[in-house]
This record gives sequence, structure tokens and C-alpha cells, in this order.
Amino acid sequence: MLDADKASGALGIEVAEAGEGRARARMTIGETMVNGHGIAHGGYVFLLADTTFACACNSHGPVTVAAGAEISFVAPARLGDVLVAYAEERTRFGRNGIYDVTVRREGDDAVIAEFRGRSRVAERPPT
Amino acid sequence: MLDADKASGALGIEVAEAGEGRARARMTIGETMVNGHGIAHGGYVFLLADTTFACACNSHGPVTVAAGAEISFVAPARLGDVLVAYAEERTRFGRNGIYDVTVRREGDDAVIAEFRGRSRVAERPPT
Amino acid sequence: MLDADKASGALGIEVAEAGEGRARARMTIGETMVNGHGIAHGGYVFLLADTTFACACNSHGPVTVAAGAEISFVAPARLGDVLVAYAEERTRFGRNGIYDVTVRREGDDAVIAEFRGRSRVAERPPT
Amino acid sequence: MLDADKASGALGIEVAEAGEGRARARMTIGETMVNGHGIAHGGYVFLLADTTFACACNSHGPVTVAAGAEISFVAPARLGDVLVAYAEERTRFGRNGIYDVTVRREGDDAVIAEFRGRSRVAERPPT
Repeated sequence: MLDADKASGALGIEVAEAGEGRARARMTIGETMVNGHGIAHGGYVFLLADTTFACACNSHGPVTVAAGAEISFVAPARLGDVLVAYAEERTRFGRNGIYDVTVRREGDDAVIAEFRGRSRVAERPPT
Repeated sequence: MLDADKASGALGIEVAEAGEGRARARMTIGETMVNGHGIAHGGYVFLLADTTFACACNSHGPVTVAAGAEISFVAPARLGDVLVAYAEERTRFGRNGIYDVTVRREGDDAVIAEFRGRSRVAERPPT
Repeated sequence: MLDADKASGALGIEVAEAGEGRARARMTIGETMVNGHGIAHGGYVFLLADTTFACACNSHGPVTVAAGAEISFVAPARLGDVLVAYAEERTRFGRNGIYDVTVRREGDDAVIAEFRGRSRVAERPPT
Repeated sequence: MLDADKASGALGIEVAEAGEGRARARMTIGETMVNGHGIAHGGYVFLLADTTFACACNSHGPVTVAAGAEISFVAPARLGDVLVAYAEERTRFGRNGIYDVTVRREGDDAVIAEFRGRSRVAERPPT
């Protein structure tokens, strides 16, 4: 999780909490994340959701990786928007898990994206 | 498309070609994209795929946005890996389109991720 | 919704309730739904989830169709299992909606599948 | 694969060919598959795609099951339409595979649905 934080540090993602299959994180849409119209690239919204998902699925202990994910872009995020992602476990089975992440804009609470991630406990720690 | 390039500039994504529903782009996995084990955050792989998808679906002319996407992480990418994404249109219907993007590692051509994006022609240009 | 019921009648799907973006339905895994090992074809589990989703997204009034869906098969269902699907709206935006459906086995409540559907209000009633 | 055929027999799905990660199958939209407007329930289109996917991923030999799938409904199918599904392997890694299935209407070749399935080789044969 610290690793996740480190990898996400350059984006200014702050993990507010993580535990028991849940996590919450924030990110501000900065200059490098938008196009000429000031609209955020969906990839950065995914990055926030994916990081929050990683914190949630690793909160159980064993090293767990993302096997895949699906995202629906609900509304555009804009330069200066503060986004908050909230991840929660939906189900776990064998080494697998499914986690739902909703990304909202702070302030008006508008939904920006809905994300569903598929996790898998690593066979052995990555080297 | 220039906008997409601009938004992706900070990541060093180079769009090699785009046209007729196809696009190809490259990105090198840098220090800010990896965790403590030198393994790339999947979100950056998504960003490359998503950018390539955006170039492909906008190559037809009308402003087109991502409605959503699905990604499967096939193999980890590592610090220094050069990734190449190739996007191609699968089908278009009404204002909608489906595009497949495969991300490979340059050199051994190993598949890193498979991405499928859903596009939608914008009702009017974003402002 | 009556139509959905009719189309699903041959499968014995009973819609227990539907309203305000939610729905619940039941189906028993019959002889024609299993393979030689007595394990249900995932397609029938999808059919139950998809029907429940259709009831939930049409419960708002306007004719609404499925634009797409994602399903994860969590555990196998077997001959004679009674499956219960519960659909609830996650978010709506413009003509679009996202609905989550969990399919469980009656009795031990084991999760059989997790489904996420994307709906779209029809431009005009199908003819 | 014979099992798959058996389970799908009630729907009249004919597997035309299967081998080397590919498969092709046909199904006619019958009375029990449509709603009051004569439009096919998407779940039956999924069933055809899923069956074709199962034949393709099992064509390699080892017993392989569907872990999940994503489907986009491109155009409605109607009573009497003959649908043809064509599945092909996109990539395999470890015990996992990704297969793309396109469902078309025979005659005008119109795309009805695009499906992407995720397969997994079974740890041991189901009992």
C-alpha cells in the first residue's frame, strides 16, 4: 500500500483511509491531467479509482494485484476539481475479489465515474 | 487529438500514427510510474491504452469521447519497458463505437494488457 | 416489464418485485440449463441477471434497453439450485444508467455471479 | 464441448466448427426468445456468444471455464433472425485466456453484439 502511495505520489493522490476491504482517496485535477478544454483525461480518473481499489484489496493483508477493471465515465471532471474515490469490496472467492469504486467530485458530490475492479491474490510476492 | 497529445505529454506518450479508426502510440515506463518493486502501476498502462483509443476514435473527424472501457492486465510492465499500444475499431453504430487496444512490450512483443473502449460522438463540442 | 416476463417465461423466471430502480427475481436451474456434470451454463445465470436488470431499469417508467453488461462468474450453480437475483440502480446520467445485480443461491446465500448492466432510455418505443 | 452442445441443445444452437482457439455457431431467434414486440431478449444473444466462446476456449484440450464476460448490444435481433457467432482467441496467459466473439445476423451480416470472454483452465475437472 505504501508502494501504491509512492507510485501515485506524483499525481498527488492522498489515501485517506484503508481497511477491511474499503478505502478512500482524493486527487486534485491538475494542469497536466487536462486537455485544451480543461477537461480531465479519463485515464487520470481511472488512475485514482485503480489506486483506491488497490488499497482496498490489499487491506486484507496478502499481496493482491489488479487482474482487470471496467470503468464507465459518467461526467467530465475539470481543472481544479477535487475528486474523491470510495472503494468497497463486493465479494471475494478463492484468490479473487471484486471491488466497486465510485469517483465523486468534492462539493456537489456529482458522480464522475463508476469503476469495478477484479483482484487476485499474488501467488508469490513480485520480485 | 492534439489535445489528447497535450494531456498525455507529461507522460511522454508519442502517438506514432492515427487514422481511419486506428492508432499506435508508445510510452516508456518511468520512475514515477512504478512501485517499490519496479512494477508499473496498471493505471499508467490504462492511460496509454486510453490515449491510443482516443486517437483512433477521433480519427474519423467528429469529436468523440470515451464512454467507458474494460482492461485486463496480462503481464506486469517494469521500469524502463517501452510499451506500444495498437488500437483498432471493432464496430460503430449510431453515435457509438467499440475499439480494441492491445498493449505490448517493445522487443519481445509480450502482451501487457488487452483493453476494449466504448466511444460516443459528442452531442456538441465540450466547452 | 410484462414483456420481459413473457420472454423469460419459458425459463420459469418469477419477478418477485420491481420498483424505484430495484428488482428481485428467482429461477430454478432445470435440466435444459446444465451440462453433463449437472453444472449450469453461465448463459442462463446471465439471463436471470439480465432480466432482473431489465425490470429494475424499466421500473422508472420510460422504455429502457440494455446497452451492455459485464458478468463475473463467482461459483457454479447446479441442477435444482434456486437462484435469486437482486438488482439495484447504482447511478443514472442523461439517458444512461448503471445497475448492479448479485445472483445468490437460495438457502446458503452463496454468491453465484456479480453482474453490472448499462441501460439506455430508448429514443422511441421499439416497433 | 459435447456437454456445451447438450446444454445448448434446447436453444437449437448448432456449433459449426471449433478448433485452435476458434469456433463458429448458429442459432435462430425463436418464439420463446422474444418480447411482445418480437425483439430478442439480450440474454439469448449472450447465450449464443457464451456457448461459442466455450467451444473456442475448450478447443485447446484442457477443461476450461468462463470466468466472466462483457457484452455490448449493438443492434436488436428479431423473431426469425438467424444469428451467427464467431469466436477467436485474443490472448492466453497462464491459466487465463481472452476471447472475442462477434454475433452477426445471417443475410445482411449486421453486427448484433460484441462479446469478450475471460476463460480459466479448471484446476481439476468439475464433479
